[in-house]
Amino acid sequence: MVIAVDAAGGDHYPESPVQGAVEAVNETSDLVIVLVGPEELINDELVKHEYDRQRIKIQHAPEIIEMNESPAHAVKTKQKSSIVAGVGMHKAGKCNAFVSSGNTGALLAASTFLLGKLKGVSRPVIGAVYPTIKGVRLVMDVGANLEVRPDMFPQFARMGSIYISEIMGVEEPKVGLLNVGEEEEKGTDNLKQAYQKLNTLPNFVGNVEGGDVFNARADIFLCDGLVGNILLKFGESIPEALEMFIKRGIQQHGFGEEETRLAGKVLKASLREFNPDRVGGVPFLGVDGVSMVGHGSSTPRAIKNMILNAVKCIEYNINEKIIASLN
Amino acid sequence: MVIAVDAAGGDHYPESPVQGAVEAVNETSDLVIVLVGPEELINDELVKHEYDRQRIKIQHAPEIIEMNESPAHAVKTKQKSSIVAGVGMHKAGKCNAFVSSGNTGALLAASTFLLGKLKGVSRPVIGAVYPTIKGVRLVMDVGANLEVRPDMFPQFARMGSIYISEIMGVEEPKVGLLNVGEEEEKGTDNLKQAYQKLNTLPNFVGNVEGGDVFNARADIFLCDGLVGNILLKFGESIPEALEMFIKRGIQQHGFGEEETRLAGKVLKASLREFNPDRVGGVPFLGVDGVSMVGHGSSTPRAIKNMILNAVKCIEYNINEKIIASLN
Repeated sequence: MVIAVDAAGGDHYPESPVQGAVEAVNETSDLVIVLVGPEELINDELVKHEYDRQRIKIQHAPEIIEMNESPAHAVKTKQKSSIVAGVGMHKAGKCNAFVSSGNTGALLAASTFLLGKLKGVSRPVIGAVYPTIKGVRLVMDVGANLEVRPDMFPQFARMGSIYISEIMGVEEPKVGLLNVGEEEEKGTDNLKQAYQKLNTLPNFVGNVEGGDVFNARADIFLCDGLVGNILLKFGESIPEALEMFIKRGIQQHGFGEEETRLAGKVLKASLREFNPDRVGGVPFLGVDGVSMVGHGSSTPRAIKNMILNAVKCIEYNINEKIIASLN
Repeated sequence: MVIAVDAAGGDHYPESPVQGAVEAVNETSDLVIVLVGPEELINDELVKHEYDRQRIKIQHAPEIIEMNESPAHAVKTKQKSSIVAGVGMHKAGKCNAFVSSGNTGALLAASTFLLGKLKGVSRPVIGAVYPTIKGVRLVMDVGANLEVRPDMFPQFARMGSIYISEIMGVEEPKVGLLNVGEEEEKGTDNLKQAYQKLNTLPNFVGNVEGGDVFNARADIFLCDGLVGNILLKFGESIPEALEMFIKRGIQQHGFGEEETRLAGKVLKASLREFNPDRVGGVPFLGVDGVSMVGHGSSTPRAIKNMILNAVKCIEYNINEKIIASLN
């Protein structure tokens, strides 16, 4: 199995992707990784590590797509970027998956355009993982489609159900529609129509609210990409915000050093699932290939886990199962 | 000054509103409160308390609007409900404000229909308070308008700016538009147009993201009511979710009793601002009157603080300032 890794994406390239690739190779027995990006930059980083030289290769791609660049324009004008080259390799059958913590929009555009969509899929979707009291669950879409038509929701639900059961091990996943209230008639016209479309699915549990995420009243929380993206970034900011609140609370209340230390220890252990490193990255569900995106701030561990996640998607034939479910 | 209080709204009536009213009267010198609801129910509760009998009166209103009832239908068919009667008293000049922790939609419908809108206002709006590292800030709309047209955002921004500076003491408040990225061209067509409309305001700081709320990159976070409502309820669920995560963390890691106690103490002190009791309730900005809504689960302290908040809105002539700002 060959996984191509974007070595010029994210906030910490080339260090994070290179080290993540090395760790993935060292933890597995037959995985081959191709690091895609500026050759010299990658080589300078690779020499710092110990690994089987047969199992990490380099695909030179001199151009860099910055994190804030306009996705469509970047993909069009930077054909020699790591993202376009990496997705192109996947399309050409030179690797089984491409993973990146770079510009999400550019990766989505390149994946949709070059790889195309699976049979029966109208739009690819990104499902983000959320920590809940029952373990991690999915919120989707979180940015691939800012507006979602009613008939797109059941597709998202089916794709998400396969991903969360096959890859994340959630049996018989329940699907909920994020709305302003539980009743069928709540929400915008679009959401009311979505409810009716979703109601034909056996695992649809109806409307759910923002307060239902953490207690996992559903396993897949459906929403448009605007809602999902704002909610995702708000959620991701919780651990840092808590740290700020607690630092301030400690100052204001004059807690002692020992109290502070113990509180920090308990909190850190309790909020482990908030750490995005544990999942590493998620696939664009619906594209004809395995193209995964990770957080811009991905650590080496996050990249490693994203690579292992891509391996799982390939081994479990996610895409074949999605096609079977939709057609 | 006379404040009418819904004694038949929220999850804990008549206990919470009656006790909250008693506490408000006992803490102030010249406030008069009219409890609106089923007379016998209120009397049975009032007898449990000590207060100046001249300063708490009862307005009999036998009908109850349930929390889940369809707002428009409830307001139309239950003319003798506490909500319709209370707003009606306000319209008739028999009180200076009406506060309720009952059915938000019904209260909004009754307020908009009976009180009407302030000159120049196209739609009333609900701004919810969020704890941030700089103190509480506003997210609006959180449910009065599920969809918000671009030209409505500058009005919301002006109304919110007056409220947050006059009542919440935030000087020179900054306005941000919640979006999926900071760049001007991000988001749906609606949000792009909203950006252009907002850009004419001197205190508009541009697009902000979900991760900017807790660190208060803006003081007023604008969004449509769908986004705002889902975000609000997600945010409100954080303290309980944390408690669950920490309980589980403690079990899994085998922390001792003393560690657990200290961690709980530090956390509780640090997250005081998450407690919705501290603000109690928020006004429907833009209606021609002072009509405030509190959380369904309002405690007596929350009701008391909502009453005192209404007093502030009246004393600071919020509505005159809104009219001056919009016309």
